[in-house]
Amino acid sequence: MDQGTSELAVIVLAAGMGTRMKSDLPKVMHPLAGRPMIQHLMETVSGLDPDKVVVVVGPGMDVVAQAVAPAQTVVQTERLGTGHAVMQARDLLKDFHGDVLVLYGDTPLITKATLQRMLAERRNADKNPAVVVLGFKPVDPGHYGRLVVGAEGLKAIVEFKDANHDQREIPLCNSGVMAFDGACLWDRLARIGNDNAKGEYYLTDVVGLARGDGANCSFVLGDEQELLGVNSRAELAGAEAIIQGELRRAAMDDGATLIDPASVWFSWDTRLGRDVMVWPHVVFGPGVTIGDHVVIKGFCHFEGCTIADGADVGPYARLRPGAEIGAAAHIGNFVEVKKSVIEAGAKVNHLSYIGDAQVGADANVGAGTITCNYDGFTKSCTEIGAGAFIGSNSSLVAPVKVGARAMIGAGSVITKDVSDGALAVGRGAQMEVAGWADRFRAAKAAEKAKKQGK
Amino acid sequence: MDQGTSELAVIVLAAGMGTRMKSDLPKVMHPLAGRPMIQHLMETVSGLDPDKVVVVVGPGMDVVAQAVAPAQTVVQTERLGTGHAVMQARDLLKDFHGDVLVLYGDTPLITKATLQRMLAERRNADKNPAVVVLGFKPVDPGHYGRLVVGAEGLKAIVEFKDANHDQREIPLCNSGVMAFDGACLWDRLARIGNDNAKGEYYLTDVVGLARGDGANCSFVLGDEQELLGVNSRAELAGAEAIIQGELRRAAMDDGATLIDPASVWFSWDTRLGRDVMVWPHVVFGPGVTIGDHVVIKGFCHFEGCTIADGADVGPYARLRPGAEIGAAAHIGNFVEVKKSVIEAGAKVNHLSYIGDAQVGADANVGAGTITCNYDGFTKSCTEIGAGAFIGSNSSLVAPVKVGARAMIGAGSVITKDVSDGALAVGRGAQMEVAGWADRFRAAKAAEKAKKQGK
Amino acid sequence: MDQGTSELAVIVLAAGMGTRMKSDLPKVMHPLAGRPMIQHLMETVSGLDPDKVVVVVGPGMDVVAQAVAPAQTVVQTERLGTGHAVMQARDLLKDFHGDVLVLYGDTPLITKATLQRMLAERRNADKNPAVVVLGFKPVDPGHYGRLVVGAEGLKAIVEFKDANHDQREIPLCNSGVMAFDGACLWDRLARIGNDNAKGEYYLTDVVGLARGDGANCSFVLGDEQELLGVNSRAELAGAEAIIQGELRRAAMDDGATLIDPASVWFSWDTRLGRDVMVWPHVVFGPGVTIGDHVVIKGFCHFEGCTIADGADVGPYARLRPGAEIGAAAHIGNFVEVKKSVIEAGAKVNHLSYIGDAQVGADANVGAGTITCNYDGFTKSCTEIGAGAFIGSNSSLVAPVKVGARAMIGAGSVITKDVSDGALAVGRGAQMEVAGWADRFRAAKAAEKAKKQGK
Repeated sequence: MDQGTSELAVIVLAAGMGTRMKSDLPKVMHPLAGRPMIQHLMETVSGLDPDKVVVVVGPGMDVVAQAVAPAQTVVQTERLGTGHAVMQARDLLKDFHGDVLVLYGDTPLITKATLQRMLAERRNADKNPAVVVLGFKPVDPGHYGRLVVGAEGLKAIVEFKDANHDQREIPLCNSGVMAFDGACLWDRLARIGNDNAKGEYYLTDVVGLARGDGANCSFVLGDEQELLGVNSRAELAGAEAIIQGELRRAAMDDGATLIDPASVWFSWDTRLGRDVMVWPHVVFGPGVTIGDHVVIKGFCHFEGCTIADGADVGPYARLRPGAEIGAAAHIGNFVEVKKSVIEAGAKVNHLSYIGDAQVGADANVGAGTITCNYDGFTKSCTEIGAGAFIGSNSSLVAPVKVGARAMIGAGSVITKDVSDGALAVGRGAQMEVAGWADRFRAAKAAEKAKKQGK
Repeated sequence: MDQGTSELAVIVLAAGMGTRMKSDLPKVMHPLAGRPMIQHLMETVSGLDPDKVVVVVGPGMDVVAQAVAPAQTVVQTERLGTGHAVMQARDLLKDFHGDVLVLYGDTPLITKATLQRMLAERRNADKNPAVVVLGFKPVDPGHYGRLVVGAEGLKAIVEFKDANHDQREIPLCNSGVMAFDGACLWDRLARIGNDNAKGEYYLTDVVGLARGDGANCSFVLGDEQELLGVNSRAELAGAEAIIQGELRRAAMDDGATLIDPASVWFSWDTRLGRDVMVWPHVVFGPGVTIGDHVVIKGFCHFEGCTIADGADVGPYARLRPGAEIGAAAHIGNFVEVKKSVIEAGAKVNHLSYIGDAQVGADANVGAGTITCNYDGFTKSCTEIGAGAFIGSNSSLVAPVKVGARAMIGAGSVITKDVSDGALAVGRGAQMEVAGWADRFRAAKAAEKAKKQGK
Repeated sequence: MDQGTSELAVIVLAAGMGTRMKSDLPKVMHPLAGRPMIQHLMETVSGLDPDKVVVVVGPGMDVVAQAVAPAQTVVQTERLGTGHAVMQARDLLKDFHGDVLVLYGDTPLITKATLQRMLAERRNADKNPAVVVLGFKPVDPGHYGRLVVGAEGLKAIVEFKDANHDQREIPLCNSGVMAFDGACLWDRLARIGNDNAKGEYYLTDVVGLARGDGANCSFVLGDEQELLGVNSRAELAGAEAIIQGELRRAAMDDGATLIDPASVWFSWDTRLGRDVMVWPHVVFGPGVTIGDHVVIKGFCHFEGCTIADGADVGPYARLRPGAEIGAAAHIGNFVEVKKSVIEAGAKVNHLSYIGDAQVGADANVGAGTITCNYDGFTKSCTEIGAGAFIGSNSSLVAPVKVGARAMIGAGSVITKDVSDGALAVGRGAQMEVAGWADRFRAAKAAEKAKKQGK
């Protein structure tokens, strides 16, 4: 197969636990914008339309295997360096002779465009490089390995500690990301030694071996930001900030107002319509879709929900998975909606819990209404008909149905279905004891005086 | 009328929809600090005490006309350039011969001090400039037009694309803001041509015409930040951040503590007293006035309300229009107050909705209390007397009056007035079924076992 | 006693009210990370293990005296300069001959390491400096006094206004913090004059007097950030931001994820376990301890509470002093918990107030449940047994006890104890009036039509 092939295998190295994370969770499973960081990378990989994807994981990292499915995984049981890690994928790729791209699970911000440039370079028939390395020019090159480049392309990767004074002045650093000619990768990998301070097999040694074989090597220049590696919680927060910056910018470009962009947190899949107004301090969990002309007041928290055009939500609205808010509906403060449909024009404005319910169009659910959807064993449904009026502080004990246009008296506990257009009330009768409060206060005051006095 | 006149007309160009905003709302109506951006500019204009103000709007922009009233508006039906836009104001200013200042509705941060410097320059009897242009030196001059300046003042405004290499090195750029000698403006405007790439009439051409007439032209230097133009949602957020920075700084200078200034969002008219303590994450909508020594805990959201000295509010308090919180009163978490007076020393501490109510001094409103103020048609009022005690989870069905010092038993629904000093209770009697819960659980468990088993 | 002594007295100058704070509270009492700024400094001072600590306060600053106890305080009744202020401590230190360190109550960020370096310099037997000044090199040296340094150490401190051109170019500035040889401090202080523009006694004059006596003087270099003085609310916010940055960094280093570090506000004593996940917009007041693997969703507000391993809290959870949340317990949205124990695995998920209560293991407290713990005079307790189920919108009128495994029907008011395994219900019977709502609406519509029509 010639170098013009478009066959592509991607190997993702994800075996590190990430000691500096101080976590029981494998490093690549830590979330960014609402999903594990490795899934960001896997989506970028998908965009390259690869023929094979192999993820190298550590022992016991079943959660990673699940997160990257349907990509295949292979377990690296010993930690003997990047060259050794890539070697673990050989069996799964033994019949593969195309290009091999090696990526890192903890470098999730790398872009498809950059990888495409690497592959184009790899497939450049004139150069036909055996290895294409992704270089970058960091603000602080520090102890990164340096790329030594000449007229003939990439000559060598020099580790910082082995570099001479002139080499240390080179601004071009090694990111570790590489594209290989798969036809000769495995042979060269097998020839890498571990005769170094750490006793590890370094993938970067392939460059020297290829050069020794008379093959070309090459490089492509990437951006420092996309090569941010996540090795600590602080770097995780840094990567999150970069992704959020992109999501916020995209939302504004699409016609949403974010009064305070920095206080609005999106998930990777949040969708906002045009002329959406988002007040400060709003959190979007995964699975949220917002229509046009929706107003989202401050302090809202959404997950797995949809809000249709023209609805007005918040402040302090919590929409949980399965909440579907209809067009021009109103969801007010301190209101939680879970697995419920609030139809067009309906209002749930204050201090309510609506779970497993259907609220009909233009219904008005009063302050403090609770759908009692759980008996400790089973979740049951509440149906509120179109145009119904639920008086404040009512308890709707599911399964129960309030008919269309029915009214419920304030403070009622409703356990039986209510007919269309009927009034239902369920509450105790009011009784008054004249002067009782004054006597109670006098008695309490006397009691207090007695305690203090005698 | 001579050039020493203080007569002033201001023309505000506001006809653009702002395509990049991707909005159905005219660009200048997008809000900053709680009011349309053009109203910020109009307030600055008012500070100049002008004799005439004309706002040039686009077709169908009635909302802009309303927002700028009582300023007059004129509609520019065709979009033929800034010169053409200013020309639309001619009929309204035909008897006016003083100074004419041209501003832009989407440049809302320009300061009164800068405009006063422009007018002072315009009225400089020695120079008597026909045109005074507001220049600025941006960090990135990019493709802005450049001001060519000589000993005799402003010689020309050169568009970037027409500028030669030396002119492109000029750091002084054209903001578009200009002050004119009104006596000769209209004549020169009429002589502007549209023989250019876009076929538009450019206001900047007046400088060349004036120079050709032998008149002086001049410039004044402004600040880049105040000349920020709002053409996208991202620039809107940028302008908002600048205004908020000023509002926060002013609040701190006046003696309020903002633990986290960046998370506190003010409206243009927010007033805070001395020794106010504002915790992180607080949003002030329009129309809020806070007294001295008030503590505002985190996550509060206020609109159209007043809080008197020494009150303690939040966290999670939502005060809506018409909420008046008295001295040393307490409003606690998850409490919404709308169109209600909470008198001095009263407490509404937890999970309550108080709407259309009067809560007397030192009254204590228990957790979960709801004023049921709406029957689907009419809003009715609740009166709670001084020193009254409302038991938790009560529903007060308005119109209703609880007397001074009266007590309401927890969980009551109160539909009838309660006398001063009385106790009122309205709830069902408690009944117990011994062992029922244990039997229920056993039955449920058996049911589950049966389902799984057989 | 020779200069190698380790005896140490610390004098903290804290007499200023801080006019620019515009506050009724003494400047040093303004809080940073949940405690008065002077307590940050006192903790740093404690770390030096001093033999004596004297705080110089202004008249009427009893709150400062309380805040710094058990340190001794002395009142400076007149404001005659820093030299005069230090002089006030003489009587309390008359038998003391060790080192004297002078600090400022409004410079709370100074580090123990810097002070230790100053003391080590002071105790350097070769130099035996009479004075060690803490210098710093600010980004903008502005009008700070300059340290004139030669081969022989610190030659002089020159006030900016007295400095010549060359001296003004010196980047090394005077922080005011000094360590003295106590054996000769008081004598020199007594010789300071006030023949200057302000008529004040300047502590810095001790350097010139010591030099005149033939004694050595020396300096140590500090960091600009730790020398930030707090003189305004804006500087207070700046100091808060620095402290919060350190607290956030420490939390992340210890293995907590802060999705948005900048929106999480800690107190000085907040403790987070490993693998804690903190969503954006969370506020930790003083006295909070969080176990491992706890999830804290957005918009939470905690004070004086503990959360055990594996619990899941928020969003919008408010935990107040005395809230103890057990392992794997769930506290959901719009829930306030005060002085209550929520045992392992228990759930309080929605819109509840739990105060003065004990909630047993695995109990389920339904939405809208309120513990009615206050009768206007006394707080009473609620006990909920293990495995109990409290139906939604219930009111538990304390003192009351719900037995283990008992169930409470939704919307009940519970005033009497409920036995283990029993069901208790306390609510009104439901009644229905067929067609009433339709007739009500028709009547309202007719009424409205009549008003508008005739």
